[in-house]
Amino acid sequence: MYKAIIFDVYGTLFDMSSLKKDMVQFDDAQATSISKLWRKTQLNHMFLKQIMQRYIPFDELTKEALRYTMESHEIQYNREDVNQLFDSFLDLEYFEEVPQVVSLLNSKEIDVGILSNGNDNMLMPLIDNSELGDYINTVISVNEIKQYKPSPASYALILKYYHLKREDILFVSSNSWDVTGASNFGFDTVWVNRHNELFDFNGQTPTITVNNLNEIVNWLEIK
Amino acid sequence: MYKAIIFDVYGTLFDMSSLKKDMVQFDDAQATSISKLWRKTQLNHMFLKQIMQRYIPFDELTKEALRYTMESHEIQYNREDVNQLFDSFLDLEYFEEVPQVVSLLNSKEIDVGILSNGNDNMLMPLIDNSELGDYINTVISVNEIKQYKPSPASYALILKYYHLKREDILFVSSNSWDVTGASNFGFDTVWVNRHNELFDFNGQTPTITVNNLNEIVNWLEIK
Repeated sequence: MYKAIIFDVYGTLFDMSSLKKDMVQFDDAQATSISKLWRKTQLNHMFLKQIMQRYIPFDELTKEALRYTMESHEIQYNREDVNQLFDSFLDLEYFEEVPQVVSLLNSKEIDVGILSNGNDNMLMPLIDNSELGDYINTVISVNEIKQYKPSPASYALILKYYHLKREDILFVSSNSWDVTGASNFGFDTVWVNRHNELFDFNGQTPTITVNNLNEIVNWLEIK
Repeated sequence: MYKAIIFDVYGTLFDMSSLKKDMVQFDDAQATSISKLWRKTQLNHMFLKQIMQRYIPFDELTKEALRYTMESHEIQYNREDVNQLFDSFLDLEYFEEVPQVVSLLNSKEIDVGILSNGNDNMLMPLIDNSELGDYINTVISVNEIKQYKPSPASYALILKYYHLKREDILFVSSNSWDVTGASNFGFDTVWVNRHNELFDFNGQTPTITVNNLNEIVNWLEIK
């Protein structure tokens, strides 16, 4: 049995499609388009900044990605608009099974942690707003080392917090690039494939693929 | 005046939309869809492998990206199909103004070079097939250091080949991430914006933006 299960945050515990719920100033199609390009740009900038060795905190990066997204949609905006839209990142909705799964893992004395590219300015309000804080024991942000996932150094942070062997850790993400990065580092991994997609093989495969977090509990035979 | 002008290859000198011209087994819509996802996956894998420190030569990476693309399209394929489609990368069409522009630069004693993520197995046949070899003096592949663009180390390769100061080099690319990387390294840069898109600001801006390579010649006031 694994001694700690570490979850990714954005897209894995929290539903990125809920980004658009506060975009009341836009119609639904536009809100969907904005939230998708925003997330895509956020990831793209993150990867490129990591390669260029130009780390900036994730809240700044997320606002930068939003400005590009607004300009791409030819929407006028000011600083206040950016801040208001950014706040959606602090109040995302979790997938419905999350509280039950993480509380069950906790009750079985499996440590539940998160490893995120978000910095504390983003993670702490999100966890507080979601009331998941009671079940998440360890919050790890890559901001500590200023290197984003999927760099090996980012996953190594988990070993700094947990004095465990790599094989005692299970890493869970819905982002294929994150699964690839964690597998590449040497962790067992779960790919959460909620939309029945094809795993983007990039040199690594997940240990197991599930459709939702409940299936992890079944696979681990936790009762 | 710059002493050397270094061009990116894929998308800058050669038209990625010509990837589909040999895809005679697919209808036009499918060929377009395949060529777009193929290129997108190629870039995505490249960035992630760079971050994970898992460099592989670009021909292997390009075939891996093609396999994912075929599976995403639910197309059966074998090794021979992959090799046949891969060959399109060795016979891309250059943008129409390329020969005239590079020969003019050459005649003005401005050294014309290329810096590409492609390895020699890809670059050499492409240049031979295009008959541009007479105008390209210096072919630099990141394979030499096993780090893809936009890493700083990849652009530093240019300085290894040319014993020039950074300000004597002009770097030209249609890929915004490549312009960002070269600007980040300290080169003056040209963004070739053929489709009237918005520059994806990621901490850097190009020195100049043009719609095609002829405009570079005009800007430099070469007659």
